[in-house]
Amino acid sequence: MIPDSLIDGYKSFLGDRFARERLRYETLAETGQSPEILVIGCCDSRVSPEVIFDAGPGELFVVRNVANIVPPYETSGQFHGTSAAIEFAVEALKVRHVVVMGHANCGGIRSFAQKSAPLSSGDFIGRWMSIIAPAADTLEDPGEVPSEDYMARLNLAAVEQSLANLMTFGSVRRRVNAGEMELHGAYFGVATGHLLVRDPATHRFEPVVTDVGVPPSLFRSY
Amino acid sequence: MIPDSLIDGYKSFLGDRFARERLRYETLAETGQSPEILVIGCCDSRVSPEVIFDAGPGELFVVRNVANIVPPYETSGQFHGTSAAIEFAVEALKVRHVVVMGHANCGGIRSFAQKSAPLSSGDFIGRWMSIIAPAADTLEDPGEVPSEDYMARLNLAAVEQSLANLMTFGSVRRRVNAGEMELHGAYFGVATGHLLVRDPATHRFEPVVTDVGVPPSLFRSY
Amino acid sequence: MIPDSLIDGYKSFLGDRFARERLRYETLAETGQSPEILVIGCCDSRVSPEVIFDAGPGELFVVRNVANIVPPYETSGQFHGTSAAIEFAVEALKVRHVVVMGHANCGGIRSFAQKSAPLSSGDFIGRWMSIIAPAADTLEDPGEVPSEDYMARLNLAAVEQSLANLMTFGSVRRRVNAGEMELHGAYFGVATGHLLVRDPATHRFEPVVTDVGVPPSLFRSY
Amino acid sequence: MIPDSLIDGYKSFLGDRFARERLRYETLAETGQSPEILVIGCCDSRVSPEVIFDAGPGELFVVRNVANIVPPYETSGQFHGTSAAIEFAVEALKVRHVVVMGHANCGGIRSFAQKSAPLSSGDFIGRWMSIIAPAADTLEDPGEVPSEDYMARLNLAAVEQSLANLMTFGSVRRRVNAGEMELHGAYFGVATGHLLVRDPATHRFEPVVTDVGVPPSLFRSY
Repeated sequence: MIPDSLIDGYKSFLGDRFARERLRYETLAETGQSPEILVIGCCDSRVSPEVIFDAGPGELFVVRNVANIVPPYETSGQFHGTSAAIEFAVEALKVRHVVVMGHANCGGIRSFAQKSAPLSSGDFIGRWMSIIAPAADTLEDPGEVPSEDYMARLNLAAVEQSLANLMTFGSVRRRVNAGEMELHGAYFGVATGHLLVRDPATHRFEPVVTDVGVPPSLFRSY
Repeated sequence: MIPDSLIDGYKSFLGDRFARERLRYETLAETGQSPEILVIGCCDSRVSPEVIFDAGPGELFVVRNVANIVPPYETSGQFHGTSAAIEFAVEALKVRHVVVMGHANCGGIRSFAQKSAPLSSGDFIGRWMSIIAPAADTLEDPGEVPSEDYMARLNLAAVEQSLANLMTFGSVRRRVNAGEMELHGAYFGVATGHLLVRDPATHRFEPVVTDVGVPPSLFRSY
Repeated sequence: MIPDSLIDGYKSFLGDRFARERLRYETLAETGQSPEILVIGCCDSRVSPEVIFDAGPGELFVVRNVANIVPPYETSGQFHGTSAAIEFAVEALKVRHVVVMGHANCGGIRSFAQKSAPLSSGDFIGRWMSIIAPAADTLEDPGEVPSEDYMARLNLAAVEQSLANLMTFGSVRRRVNAGEMELHGAYFGVATGHLLVRDPATHRFEPVVTDVGVPPSLFRSY
Repeated sequence: MIPDSLIDGYKSFLGDRFARERLRYETLAETGQSPEILVIGCCDSRVSPEVIFDAGPGELFVVRNVANIVPPYETSGQFHGTSAAIEFAVEALKVRHVVVMGHANCGGIRSFAQKSAPLSSGDFIGRWMSIIAPAADTLEDPGEVPSEDYMARLNLAAVEQSLANLMTFGSVRRRVNAGEMELHGAYFGVATGHLLVRDPATHRFEPVVTDVGVPPSLFRSY
């Protein structure tokens, strides 16, 4: 049976949020969605984009894969789920913003840094995570046991890689160059709740709010 | 610049939900995630799994792609985002439930039914949606203009297809057959808020709550 | 037998240029090469980088393939000649400049725009030229017979694509972001001898010399 | 900014060579190229084919990759730059001669002989140079530190390998066997300026000019 927690959660949603936003859901069903923002986030259970950005229905078009990765534009192979979602968001929905959002403690990034053994003979995770290999090339060798600081920087370097990969899509490049769409990098610290946003000029990730009340040592920029 | 709506939403999250659940986030960062449920949902901006199931941090491992599709196990090509996420959830996180959740008014399903022209030369959406072709084969020919009823049934048939594709993964099959993991199908009606859940015995999708107060005509089971 | 034209040309080189630059060749053989510039040019017989830039031995590290293309960083398949050359130039030679140089009347670009039939069952040209498909997506549909103006713009859009693809190489990104290396786009007009160089701020290609004495109509910027 | 040396070189080309050969460039732009010779050369900055063969515009169709390698005909993977160039030269331009030109002091060949560590995680150079492994198998084991004589012989063996690989292309084999096209091997000594050409009967590389005035010891045949 489907878990009770899902049924209970759904009833809570029905009685509370859906009851309050009912008209919005009805209108969105009738008119179709027209979100302005595409978020490429991680599958991780701690980093729901709708929760972190307190977003309502119709606001965020959300792709979630392991480690919030954008592959380069390449058409070998048959099924490209993330590239399909980007194509749909950019060409059909014409979103105005794309946010690649990394987060601390990402298991996919960690499995790459630790050179984990394949989980199955298909080695889907190993091949998927290999997309960030050129990002790791931009950092120093982490040694046997990657430090937490290294892990955070690898996460941000992977966001940079995904932003570069996005620009290999002709549709993305055309709309960015025409000023019709912007690309953003972000990073959520699960433990501290801090959100870093990439400065497009300096490529540094800086906190958007500086008075969250967390120890400064956990709140650095990169 | 990153949209103000995201910054404002984040501040609201920080002051409200994160403030209330801070300990949980801290603990989850320390101990790592151990969700019991994998949800495979659509990118659509109206169907956030965390919202619909009123789920807290750590509860749902969420893959989102266009039309909540699971491809069959196949290893040609290099990058398989959804298969990587399934492999990670099943083999590393050892989730106990997998929910494939379709929804009404899905643009990806519609583009397939209407045989839309490619959005770009890569035709990522076209190739991605071709995964549901065998699902369409289980239904009658929709004619030139597919009816809304046909669209709903195609959506559910696509969920069935994804459930069958899940069973092509050896790791999924092994854990399901050992009673360690269950597969579920679900369907969310955006306009009405109803949630249908697939009965594993009859393969019919039935409402989990029957007194939402929506017109019965919008609330049928399939 | 090897063509006489090559033997005659070699004798002319020996008696003239090699005689004059002998010391330089000897020194370069002893110390090894240390070019500061990587040029990615076309195989076309009319666009030798050493001729157009009047470059001496040791100055230009030159990759030449059909249509001066950089593929995205992707490691499926076994042999990546251009990616290998980029890796060598960037990581071993540490060049300071990379120039992607397109040219007018490119047969590879034309075969793509005209959707030419495969030349052999391997369809190497068709698959190679497919790298510029996302560049074509940034332009309007050329119709049945692409205009010369369209061809020129497709050529420049393909240079843009290659510049974006270069940024998917971690080593390129690291050195560019550190200010250690610059990427440039250029375009040579075979008939007029004009050279356009891409302005990194506006992404427009502008003539570097404006008094060549060619009709202005043949000398526009893009 | 694009390096001044390129701008200065281009101005020199414009005022000198282009001024003298202007009609030829104009004609070549109008009629298209029809080179009779394909040269497969190295990216090395010291071995420009147009310089060494004193060739004018329209004469040489030039592929340049690391170590002037022809891969075998194989179609796994998506992008085959060198095979695409060969296909274009042989099938579309119908060249009458193909010259594979090696050279002394080749960094790619050296990195193979010394089993250098990968330059990046993609290891593009390592995989590319693995094409000459069967060439190395035709020579004795070089020991820890390969001698210069071994390096020269490995270079020539790699040219032999590329000539054999060329014959794995059906189109090449057909035209060679029909007497419509010839394959040649050549080798340029950077320090001495000597050019060796392969004798198709003996497979030995012999100097084409014997009175260059270099010490005989640097001028042996192989």
